[in-house]
Amino acid sequence: MTTGELAAPTPRYDYVRDGAAIYAESFATIRAETDLSHLPADAEKVAVRMVHATGQTDLAAALVVHPALVKSARAALRAGAPVLTDATMVASGVTRARLPRANDVRCLLGDPRVPDLARAWGTTRSAAAVSLWADSLAGSVVAIGNAPTALFHLLELLADGAPPPAAIIGVPVGFIGAAESKEALASFSAEHGIDVPFLTVHGRRGGSALAAAAVNALAREQE
Amino acid sequence: MTTGELAAPTPRYDYVRDGAAIYAESFATIRAETDLSHLPADAEKVAVRMVHATGQTDLAAALVVHPALVKSARAALRAGAPVLTDATMVASGVTRARLPRANDVRCLLGDPRVPDLARAWGTTRSAAAVSLWADSLAGSVVAIGNAPTALFHLLELLADGAPPPAAIIGVPVGFIGAAESKEALASFSAEHGIDVPFLTVHGRRGGSALAAAAVNALAREQE
Repeated sequence: MTTGELAAPTPRYDYVRDGAAIYAESFATIRAETDLSHLPADAEKVAVRMVHATGQTDLAAALVVHPALVKSARAALRAGAPVLTDATMVASGVTRARLPRANDVRCLLGDPRVPDLARAWGTTRSAAAVSLWADSLAGSVVAIGNAPTALFHLLELLADGAPPPAAIIGVPVGFIGAAESKEALASFSAEHGIDVPFLTVHGRRGGSALAAAAVNALAREQE
Repeated sequence: MTTGELAAPTPRYDYVRDGAAIYAESFATIRAETDLSHLPADAEKVAVRMVHATGQTDLAAALVVHPALVKSARAALRAGAPVLTDATMVASGVTRARLPRANDVRCLLGDPRVPDLARAWGTTRSAAAVSLWADSLAGSVVAIGNAPTALFHLLELLADGAPPPAAIIGVPVGFIGAAESKEALASFSAEHGIDVPFLTVHGRRGGSALAAAAVNALAREQE
């Protein structure tokens, strides 16, 4: 098939067809409908992009953003830090063209060592894969969008003295452990005396689209 | 690094670490908290998995499922039909091991013909890529999780006489056109006299995780 054989379908619906206009109108709608006053000023674009990914303006009220999150994550990415994630969907959702240094986006869930480690440790493969970040963890940008066990495991590694990432985007989703893992992230500094800049969402909401949206907003200032 | 050098972190949080138990408890929680009585009986597991992907029980009330959707999509997948999607994140979220016939999961957004077609037709790349499904569309399972323009474009192709897929999972997300494109899908049969089994979500919610969850539930009956 060549493109010459293809024709556009007969227009039958009235909708915005220009990609840039869709983005601009979407972000304007979100800004008109959403209260972001509780967030750090430099997190505004991150919050807007996360609301965009969910289609829900009330997500904003559930967002918690550490005051140093945006500055720390941006500096790390500009310095070439990798993005470490628990899910291939998050990795797939990171827009490579937005990354300032063609940063590596790494998900180790498929690493051949993972199943044995998970069995030996009595945990999920998502959690075991976090231990394989070891050498890359210091100064990285972590984006956990799927598994509460991955976030709990990361916090346990940090409490044991693992070198902290520059930023943790911790937004696992779901009904078992998700809300609790995010509360553990939000109170980690107070409980363990290790202050790692983080971003999270209270409650059950989260997911790979939210994690990727946060990374995409942090990767480049321009919308 | 060998796995021999790695040790599990000190357990500091009380959480479920068994993957199968997490799934089972999650689905039980969803079933206890969610009213699915307005949906076709055979769509129950699809709805549960979609609620699971969002962490929101109130998603169920926004779901619309055509009475023949589950039967038609399952039969198509068992016959080896491809899954056609608008977004790489959806493709990434489809669990290959659940597919009954190692079905092809195809996203053509990166096809080299797409940018020229989008420019020539004055539409988005997501919409233009839908036209490239042409030869695969008949009897396929379509999963649109990102772009409203892709769903509108598909409906325009079908109204022009394109061979219909076996099922359309149409759950684009967002603030501009998303709700409208899904209403167009839900009323397509009434408006155009072409009855294609579909699944959608009223309003702005949707996304790649929801689309992938629906495909994963349809691909295999077992949870």
